[in-house]
Amino acid sequence: MPEGNLKKTKRTNLVRNSKRAVYDRTVVNEIIDATPLCHVSYIIDGRPYVTPTLQWREGDMIFWHGSSASRFLHQIVGKDVCLAITHFDGFVLARSAFHHSINYRSVMLFGQATKIEDAQKKELLQSFVEGLIPGRWEHLRPMTDQEAKATTVFSMPIDEGSAKVRSGPPGDDEDDYSLPIWAGLLPVSQVLHDPVPDPKNLDGLEVPTHIRDFKLG
Amino acid sequence: MPEGNLKKTKRTNLVRNSKRAVYDRTVVNEIIDATPLCHVSYIIDGRPYVTPTLQWREGDMIFWHGSSASRFLHQIVGKDVCLAITHFDGFVLARSAFHHSINYRSVMLFGQATKIEDAQKKELLQSFVEGLIPGRWEHLRPMTDQEAKATTVFSMPIDEGSAKVRSGPPGDDEDDYSLPIWAGLLPVSQVLHDPVPDPKNLDGLEVPTHIRDFKLG
Repeated sequence: MPEGNLKKTKRTNLVRNSKRAVYDRTVVNEIIDATPLCHVSYIIDGRPYVTPTLQWREGDMIFWHGSSASRFLHQIVGKDVCLAITHFDGFVLARSAFHHSINYRSVMLFGQATKIEDAQKKELLQSFVEGLIPGRWEHLRPMTDQEAKATTVFSMPIDEGSAKVRSGPPGDDEDDYSLPIWAGLLPVSQVLHDPVPDPKNLDGLEVPTHIRDFKLG
Repeated sequence: MPEGNLKKTKRTNLVRNSKRAVYDRTVVNEIIDATPLCHVSYIIDGRPYVTPTLQWREGDMIFWHGSSASRFLHQIVGKDVCLAITHFDGFVLARSAFHHSINYRSVMLFGQATKIEDAQKKELLQSFVEGLIPGRWEHLRPMTDQEAKATTVFSMPIDEGSAKVRSGPPGDDEDDYSLPIWAGLLPVSQVLHDPVPDPKNLDGLEVPTHIRDFKLG
């Protein structure tokens, strides 16, 4: 069960014009669940880093993962993190350059990166794969202990942060609406294409139902 | 003229498995130019922040912008920045959970955020709009000095950083290729949809050529 809305703090206020910030957990969860891609930023040796990685949500927790071989990931255990998830929904074409914009849905979360212990990892990674591609896990060669060890998983509560969404037509200056300038939207979306079989698949293997039925987001 | 390849430094080494890092400027520029969306991370009061914003490139410089009203942006002038641009190209479905992955193209750049002076801004914003939607600028109500002032533009040389690209079929463990498991790709791409006119457009305004001909990336 969700624990209510996200916390509004000094940090969330700093980055969000309060007019546009959304703290509603349902909105936040929908944005998180609509793509696995996220960008996580950390400080190492006093300098900022941001890396793209894959995230998944379980209830009020967000998880992301990486290779245990990464020297980078070792340095962020327990550290402050800012995590962003962004959907680019299209160009907003106004009557003035100034009011040009994009439509988007974004979430920004703050917290600390908690490293998941080995004993919990297999189950979590199974949820990750199953959440991403429902039905896939049971078809796979089972995960070994070594593979679980080789994967580092971090978690963070979805607690402090906010969403920001822009949708709809341009917002022009009142006087500009009388100008004969075409304004509107150029919508953009992520689409899924037909599955491409690995050339190394065994002969006669058909595209399984869980792949044929896969939907994005 | 490009100034040769990007610099490999302690920072770029930390985040990139050297095997996968690409320092070739042509590859880096192609990834940057294929989307306006980027994620920029900064440190404020000792904590990391990452915000999505729009970027554009001119030669060996990258630019990004925001509202001058943002208290956030005032705090990053001259500060260390890490900027990431990421394209999600699809799911990589392997025979083991461990070798599941995504195909992607990403660039990570390091530098300092230099604030552009007012005198240079109009010209830069014109290049931004023209780069993004060629042919648009001449149709617009001209930019006022006040609007240029209300926009903050940052620049950074494209100098220290690297690209990382994954493409192609899954890379499974040798033994797993003999298993009767369907493996392959679920390609994903960003697509543009038909222009949606603003309901407030004047009667009889047709979709102009520069919008009809617009291509993504």
